[in-house]
Amino acid sequence: MERASETMNDSHNARLQRALTMLAKMDSGGRELVATWLDGIAPDFARMATEFAFGDIYSRPGLDLRSRQVATIAALTVLGHADQLKFHIGVGIRAGLTQNEVVEIIMQMGIYGGFPLAVNGLRAAKELFIPAAG
Amino acid sequence: MERASETMNDSHNARLQRALTMLAKMDSGGRELVATWLDGIAPDFARMATEFAFGDIYSRPGLDLRSRQVATIAALTVLGHADQLKFHIGVGIRAGLTQNEVVEIIMQMGIYGGFPLAVNGLRAAKELFIPAAG
Amino acid sequence: MERASETMNDSHNARLQRALTMLAKMDSGGRELVATWLDGIAPDFARMATEFAFGDIYSRPGLDLRSRQVATIAALTVLGHADQLKFHIGVGIRAGLTQNEVVEIIMQMGIYGGFPLAVNGLRAAKELFIPAAG
Amino acid sequence: MERASETMNDSHNARLQRALTMLAKMDSGGRELVATWLDGIAPDFARMATEFAFGDIYSRPGLDLRSRQVATIAALTVLGHADQLKFHIGVGIRAGLTQNEVVEIIMQMGIYGGFPLAVNGLRAAKELFIPAAG
Amino acid sequence: MERASETMNDSHNARLQRALTMLAKMDSGGRELVATWLDGIAPDFARMATEFAFGDIYSRPGLDLRSRQVATIAALTVLGHADQLKFHIGVGIRAGLTQNEVVEIIMQMGIYGGFPLAVNGLRAAKELFIPAAG
Amino acid sequence: MERASETMNDSHNARLQRALTMLAKMDSGGRELVATWLDGIAPDFARMATEFAFGDIYSRPGLDLRSRQVATIAALTVLGHADQLKFHIGVGIRAGLTQNEVVEIIMQMGIYGGFPLAVNGLRAAKELFIPAAG
Repeated sequence: MERASETMNDSHNARLQRALTMLAKMDSGGRELVATWLDGIAPDFARMATEFAFGDIYSRPGLDLRSRQVATIAALTVLGHADQLKFHIGVGIRAGLTQNEVVEIIMQMGIYGGFPLAVNGLRAAKELFIPAAG
Repeated sequence: MERASETMNDSHNARLQRALTMLAKMDSGGRELVATWLDGIAPDFARMATEFAFGDIYSRPGLDLRSRQVATIAALTVLGHADQLKFHIGVGIRAGLTQNEVVEIIMQMGIYGGFPLAVNGLRAAKELFIPAAG
Repeated sequence: MERASETMNDSHNARLQRALTMLAKMDSGGRELVATWLDGIAPDFARMATEFAFGDIYSRPGLDLRSRQVATIAALTVLGHADQLKFHIGVGIRAGLTQNEVVEIIMQMGIYGGFPLAVNGLRAAKELFIPAAG
Repeated sequence: MERASETMNDSHNARLQRALTMLAKMDSGGRELVATWLDGIAPDFARMATEFAFGDIYSRPGLDLRSRQVATIAALTVLGHADQLKFHIGVGIRAGLTQNEVVEIIMQMGIYGGFPLAVNGLRAAKELFIPAAG
Repeated sequence: MERASETMNDSHNARLQRALTMLAKMDSGGRELVATWLDGIAPDFARMATEFAFGDIYSRPGLDLRSRQVATIAALTVLGHADQLKFHIGVGIRAGLTQNEVVEIIMQMGIYGGFPLAVNGLRAAKELFIPAAG
Repeated sequence: MERASETMNDSHNARLQRALTMLAKMDSGGRELVATWLDGIAPDFARMATEFAFGDIYSRPGLDLRSRQVATIAALTVLGHADQLKFHIGVGIRAGLTQNEVVEIIMQMGIYGGFPLAVNGLRAAKELFIPAAG
């Protein structure tokens, strides 16, 4: 499958470097995750989304990473994206959130997104915190 | 219109007291807001939702109010509830968030809920921060 | 603006007749509402959606109209469609629901769709039940 | 993992008793379900959500349980929560709904939430009504 | 389980014929898919939804099938319906879309529905285009 | 209000130039719209979102603008973003879509997002196509 690549040849991309630096800070496997993703069906989207999310937004100095993860865990819970929620809970723990704080954030989402989404979010957290629990 | 009231006569309700204490801490007008709401169409729901949200959840010691507001601002942005978002941005500012941090939280939501919801959230913040801007 | 009309010439449409009969039963102004709608931007959609919704689904004998309105009021509350919610609350009252039952249905939705959607639904009900309240 | 428990020591909680009584009426296994849930990652949320949902809302006399289940089945269909939908279809059958009425409710949701959500809801009902069908 | 059948006996249904003709054009297995579905839990809904979707809407001359699939792929991506998305990507390819165009449509949805939904959509496309990739 | 500006000083930004070129092609007022937006509450987000949406995604050669607008009109209809929908309908008309094709796209969304969202989308189109209709 051929694919547009005109925006691919910026080998010295400062935004991508900033994104990969941020990803390394967020998650030890982040760099590998993106590298694998680049082999997938839409490498340009993987790169552009990574640059925007982690190079443009998360790298901004105006908000600490712990707070950014509080916001993302809340949003992913009410949006119902369990896979991404697990990834960002892991990042949140690395950024200083306790497991108990993560549970509090997700519980609070029951008010705004309804109890089923909060229950699903708690289930995702449980799978991460108590792996044997399935 | 008649309405069930069997659960109304708990005049020493510890949860409601806890909720009103929390609301007073969150917003100087919170107590009046709930009092007015109690005259509305569903006073039982106003009371029960207040008890649950502010008496049961927000009053828990496991997460500081500033972090709770980061989570709520994020959730209300991706859920598209502009009115409640404005109320909770105000609470967040009282709890220690800067206007710039609120803007950063909402910007970040563009990644997870799409750009239109982030733009709508920023518009709500602008109406609160720069009233003349409409 | 010209528009496809190949499906318009079925003047003896049994589904449309069934839909209009159902609409007349649901709401005294329903027939006029559809007639006006037919002059709008997408008369074919108005007719086809009316036939499907009221001719195919609501006209089925397997569920009484009161129960159908309980379901629709619940769904429109959690979907956040305030205008259609008001219309269907009115139909529900005509089909035998009390104002108090409507309030109970919407309150219950706080559990599943979150408190803001329940509050918005109660506000729509209030505008219908207590017009002066705005 | 430590967790806030200040609200746990209310052993004579009338709301929890009312919730468990309601759950026993809704589903023979409801009491066990909550007991198991209490061992999970967020026992406080399990208890508080149970108290609110089944002790505060479902226990209210203003709406019969059959109607409450019509509303909940409709809401869970358009929200796309298949697991909770199956649980509440079961409760609805116990409360007097026929399998055919459940199918009619879910079909009707195609109008409001789109056909894919209705198809998914019907699939959940099929798994419950015709277990062998997968 | 008994079921309403008053609308079933229209053996010469022009809408159903039109729908089946459209389905045969969209997907070689479409006719069989509907036939199987008719044996399921809600054969009336299967028939009525098929008639509306493919007999009333898709069969209209005002928009070419390729454009209809662009719209449907976009909508199913932001609604998060992965199964239906795969079906309609297949139809889109048959209607003239290239794999690359499908990828571009889904990428673009990251702007409007958020990055997680775009990633999930790309994953669905990948499972279809590169089956071994899982 | 102070705000992070480290990413603002890239005056020769190729992505922003590409975005503004695309916006000028999409809508005669697009350049002014972005200029005004830059004075708002979150100029960095305005710029970064513009660069990503119109510089990275819309500018890609893999899909023609007419098809991109079919996708965006579909997505904004099912997401319920009426303001952005109007803007992108205008762009779609400039890119070659007829008013009738726009109506067909929105009608089709009734299948996937439910009838209320389709009706709301048609109302937005009507306000644009028949301004006097309000």
